[in-house]
Amino acid sequence: MSETNTNVMHTLDSEDPLNRYRDLFFHGNSDLIYLDGNSLGRLPRATMNHMRSIVADQWGDDLIRGWGKHWMGLQSKVGNKIAKLIGADEGEVIVADSTTINLYRLALAAMLYQKQHHRTRIVTDNLNFPSDVYVFEGITDIIKGSRVDIIPSADNISGPVNDLSKALDDHTALLSLSHTVFKSGYTYDMTEITAQAHDAGALILWDLSHSVGALPVDLKKSRADLAVGCCYKYLNGGPGAPAFLYVRKELQQKLSNPTTGWFSQNKMFEMELEYDPAATIRRFTSGTPPVLAVSAIEPSLDIFLEVGMDAIRKKSLGLTDLFIGLFDQHLAQLGFELNSPRKHKYRGSHISVGHEEGWRINQSLIQEMNVLPDFRPPNNIRFGFTPLYTSYVDVYTAVMRLRQVVTEKLYEKYSEEKSEVT
Amino acid sequence: MSETNTNVMHTLDSEDPLNRYRDLFFHGNSDLIYLDGNSLGRLPRATMNHMRSIVADQWGDDLIRGWGKHWMGLQSKVGNKIAKLIGADEGEVIVADSTTINLYRLALAAMLYQKQHHRTRIVTDNLNFPSDVYVFEGITDIIKGSRVDIIPSADNISGPVNDLSKALDDHTALLSLSHTVFKSGYTYDMTEITAQAHDAGALILWDLSHSVGALPVDLKKSRADLAVGCCYKYLNGGPGAPAFLYVRKELQQKLSNPTTGWFSQNKMFEMELEYDPAATIRRFTSGTPPVLAVSAIEPSLDIFLEVGMDAIRKKSLGLTDLFIGLFDQHLAQLGFELNSPRKHKYRGSHISVGHEEGWRINQSLIQEMNVLPDFRPPNNIRFGFTPLYTSYVDVYTAVMRLRQVVTEKLYEKYSEEKSEVT
Repeated sequence: MSETNTNVMHTLDSEDPLNRYRDLFFHGNSDLIYLDGNSLGRLPRATMNHMRSIVADQWGDDLIRGWGKHWMGLQSKVGNKIAKLIGADEGEVIVADSTTINLYRLALAAMLYQKQHHRTRIVTDNLNFPSDVYVFEGITDIIKGSRVDIIPSADNISGPVNDLSKALDDHTALLSLSHTVFKSGYTYDMTEITAQAHDAGALILWDLSHSVGALPVDLKKSRADLAVGCCYKYLNGGPGAPAFLYVRKELQQKLSNPTTGWFSQNKMFEMELEYDPAATIRRFTSGTPPVLAVSAIEPSLDIFLEVGMDAIRKKSLGLTDLFIGLFDQHLAQLGFELNSPRKHKYRGSHISVGHEEGWRINQSLIQEMNVLPDFRPPNNIRFGFTPLYTSYVDVYTAVMRLRQVVTEKLYEKYSEEKSEVT
Repeated sequence: MSETNTNVMHTLDSEDPLNRYRDLFFHGNSDLIYLDGNSLGRLPRATMNHMRSIVADQWGDDLIRGWGKHWMGLQSKVGNKIAKLIGADEGEVIVADSTTINLYRLALAAMLYQKQHHRTRIVTDNLNFPSDVYVFEGITDIIKGSRVDIIPSADNISGPVNDLSKALDDHTALLSLSHTVFKSGYTYDMTEITAQAHDAGALILWDLSHSVGALPVDLKKSRADLAVGCCYKYLNGGPGAPAFLYVRKELQQKLSNPTTGWFSQNKMFEMELEYDPAATIRRFTSGTPPVLAVSAIEPSLDIFLEVGMDAIRKKSLGLTDLFIGLFDQHLAQLGFELNSPRKHKYRGSHISVGHEEGWRINQSLIQEMNVLPDFRPPNNIRFGFTPLYTSYVDVYTAVMRLRQVVTEKLYEKYSEEKSEVT
């Protein structure tokens, strides 16, 4: 690292208003450059004490009384904090289950609702999480005559990647997309795409897993119908943290939750055999929530609410602009390709870089360079830039080490075989 | 408490081989007599340190590498420990989601499978959890032409409560029951009922929520097809702990999981858009599991495996026999009714006692007598006897205080209005 550049980076960090939040996260004794917070966010220090208290005081001491004292409204309490990050109103967001189960539940609810209007198609695209597509395929096995259409996308991800409006017709029940897609970070214009869905008479369901906590989301302004999202990526809720779901207020009484349960029942403690759905967002949940895991999400959300999504976006673009600038200067000539949008409008907070030796280069970064991104097929090294705890020095150092791995051919000692992590 | 009786109880405790396990659980500074471990089990002391390590070391230090190091097989690892408590083989049980989601997933899978054989009825009984019935009702809204039949039960719960065989016909797809029912603790003969279902050509799905960890369950011997169960009751997995599901090996390739997801995909990290279900029990899961909550289940299971279910059952019957003996001696003449089976064969590890002032008596026990059972409509006080940390002195003391609440009319100062805990 040249001294001049180092100084520039340190200046950027010292002038960064978010710099002081870095220490709110646990870094251990390691100087690891962690660029995978888009996959599993770092542990907030406050969460450590919070969990000690949840386990010992709430569970250990309060025992069953914990439900009345702490846990009965927990899913909504945490959901309402998330609502503020995604432009939703109080009572429109609740934490429950996994992203996959929430997606299944809302997509199936939408399909059953739309079936009355002879709409039986789910439209998605090939940039979506494969797991989201599996969910839709599962649903079409249940609803006779329904089907999924996966719209292909252009390779050039710096502008609009596809014309979804052409794929929407009067048989389309539901359009469902990742707002920010998992590989490239390409980010759809939520207002524009939502309008296209509505123009065709379809409902829209956004997967916010890679945009919540990464960039401002405004569900209300974009008039989105349904959304789900993940709490263990940018939101730092812990490994496999329970997810959230959003149902626009006006739709809440129109849709029926197919995965009925005790927690979606109106008067839970009367324990009547007849199902009577709650009138609130609780009607879209099912069983007893995993309290320890739901609780772990909260301390991080308080940091987000203090900082605000505009400041986070500003820092995010600062980090990704720096990365792309360094890419052009140092990486482009080494066989790397930028597989993420250059335009701010379409950019998320993670960047994918392709290289024919992507797998081995990623191994080298992790094993000997103390830089931790992740790998996504076929050849992408994916770098997540989490504004709350990633510094400009981190970005610069990571690029310099990435360059070194290639110029010094350090990757050659790693196996080309891609291991399945199981 | 008379001195003689006290001495007898202390002798019972000192001769109890499970007595030493009591201190493995967190009791705080309180001398609370906790008789609701069938609703939320106590915190094992080992779980406190375990959770500190999961949060700080596994999440905080290992970050995304935690998946490869610890978490990828966690659901099966914990599931295989549960398998040993319920007579299942390795690879037949996995921890995932909530009991409700697991019930939904397996019941729907069974219904879709049976639909090919023109079987469209779900049969259950009115002793089942209302939430289980909600799930079945939800499923019949999805599968055209299907329906739920809720078989009524006799009031006398000391012998067989109903003749299910009459309710099963060649349109029956699935019989689903709580093995030990939530109100009275009535416990079905699993082998006998399973045979009845099979004789009618139906599949059977057992909800083990109130029997797992309470009494020996032998799924293999009883030839059960499917089961789900809860980890936060007798298993002490923490509030809202993720649940488990069981699919008999021979059925695993025949049934399709309708709630497909990343974790049910065969080669997860190839991230192909096409769904290819895993060949293992993992095929019945969906999304990323809540690691913190799944991890919290494990320390308690190790205690169960050390003690063994036969010793637990022996102690359980000791506790409930004592309770029923004291009931006959002290409570029967005070307007109390025993709403649980007297016969060992049909008895679970919790006992319900009815009283027309049940609600207020329960309030008095909790508020001023330091005894914590729970209340189940219309008028039951439900006492859970968890063999690992309930002593004979606890049982005796609880009954004496219960008697005192009635003889001294202490309950009269409490409101008759049943509050909804929300």
